[in-house]
Amino acid sequence: MELSLNTATLRKQWSLAQIIDGCARHGIRGISPWRDQVAQMGLQRAKKSIQEKNLVVTGLCRGGFFTAKDWRDDNRRAIEEAHALGARCLVLVVGGLPSGSKDLASARNQVKEGIAAILPEARKAGVPLAIEPLHPMQAAERACINTLEQALDLCDFFQNGVGVAVDVYHVWWDPKLEEQVRRAGKRILAYHICDWLVPTRDLLNDRGMMGDGVIDLPRIRSWVESAGYTGFQEVEIFSELDWWKRDPDEVLRVCNDRHQRCC
Amino acid sequence: MELSLNTATLRKQWSLAQIIDGCARHGIRGISPWRDQVAQMGLQRAKKSIQEKNLVVTGLCRGGFFTAKDWRDDNRRAIEEAHALGARCLVLVVGGLPSGSKDLASARNQVKEGIAAILPEARKAGVPLAIEPLHPMQAAERACINTLEQALDLCDFFQNGVGVAVDVYHVWWDPKLEEQVRRAGKRILAYHICDWLVPTRDLLNDRGMMGDGVIDLPRIRSWVESAGYTGFQEVEIFSELDWWKRDPDEVLRVCNDRHQRCC
Repeated sequence: MELSLNTATLRKQWSLAQIIDGCARHGIRGISPWRDQVAQMGLQRAKKSIQEKNLVVTGLCRGGFFTAKDWRDDNRRAIEEAHALGARCLVLVVGGLPSGSKDLASARNQVKEGIAAILPEARKAGVPLAIEPLHPMQAAERACINTLEQALDLCDFFQNGVGVAVDVYHVWWDPKLEEQVRRAGKRILAYHICDWLVPTRDLLNDRGMMGDGVIDLPRIRSWVESAGYTGFQEVEIFSELDWWKRDPDEVLRVCNDRHQRCC
Repeated sequence: MELSLNTATLRKQWSLAQIIDGCARHGIRGISPWRDQVAQMGLQRAKKSIQEKNLVVTGLCRGGFFTAKDWRDDNRRAIEEAHALGARCLVLVVGGLPSGSKDLASARNQVKEGIAAILPEARKAGVPLAIEPLHPMQAAERACINTLEQALDLCDFFQNGVGVAVDVYHVWWDPKLEEQVRRAGKRILAYHICDWLVPTRDLLNDRGMMGDGVIDLPRIRSWVESAGYTGFQEVEIFSELDWWKRDPDEVLRVCNDRHQRCC
């Protein structure tokens, strides 16, 4: 599996234009941009630059947040942008509890209804929706879909046009991971890598570089490959305390090296 | 359900002797001590003092850590202490990855073998073992049993003498919680309460007081009651930044109040 760079990995150091150049310079052939970075660069300019460098857009981050107020328009725009960029999928971070609510079941229902609402447009645009189960520690604030099993239940319900993004950081602990990756099969639309640090100092922005933590990346990769996934391995590291502070060319060198040696 | 105090809630302010007095003074009729506090006070002295105050020992914390080196002797002593104190169960925090290992499946196997090894003694001593699934964010360092479903699979395997401790902090996010609580039935040996704060600032010691977070405590309690649990609600709050800094009598007053109003 080839390497793709999720642009969050360098969001503190570089603009999207710089990241695109950086990927090309370091021989990284995939890219998965975040929408705020695309907006800053301009959609058409981003598209042109990505095409010029022959990069594959392995995903667009992100749609979702169905429990927020403006979810309808926001997801419509996300689908349009994913289509324009030729993204292999639109990653859905589905949203957590609405402000003031403790009703997880209802939040999960809102997510289901939200996906139902945007799915016709996504299908029409040829943009597969990738539900990303997020780590249970992010259930309240970012996503109330927290296991691969739960995401696949939604995929079963919606069928055509909906799959999953498997991010090792969110699912590595799951006792049912191997079974559910097998169940996912071809519905795995994206595979994200990084590592779980011991200790982890922050619930959101303390992800580790592959090889620096405790995730058995080769084993999970083998499951994902056996399931039939033939796409990229997308490195996505939120790291306030470490990688966001480093020289971006060094970060890309290490990504390439670790991708070779640890994944 | 009556209130019990897990002594970790006041471990920074009071000795076990003081906590026992405090519970009696505040009309809290259950207590669940930690073994280091019992050792400090002396087992016989602790036993005598708890009996004098007519407190129910709703659990002893903790056995487990089957992936650590000294697990065998340590669990033998834990069972003896639980027996001596007349604890309703010995809570098992099963242990995470062995140092240097990334092999979760193997760690989980070690846990299963560890429980198998200590179970005859526990049965003989009449001490039920309560497997406590811990939040997935603690999988590497503290417990590789991370869902109620996974814990109940072990209960099914071992049958007599093994149940679960349901701590809302660890399981509130689980999409299968209601279903698995029902499945657990009478095997629920302890029910722990606190709250999940938004934001959560630390992965271990930033638990909230009931009512201060996003956990729907009345709903989960109703599931636990429907499953047939008739024991105590045990408040267990690790809180480096807040409750461990407060006047302990204030903490107990608030525990009592929130237990009445929020649980």
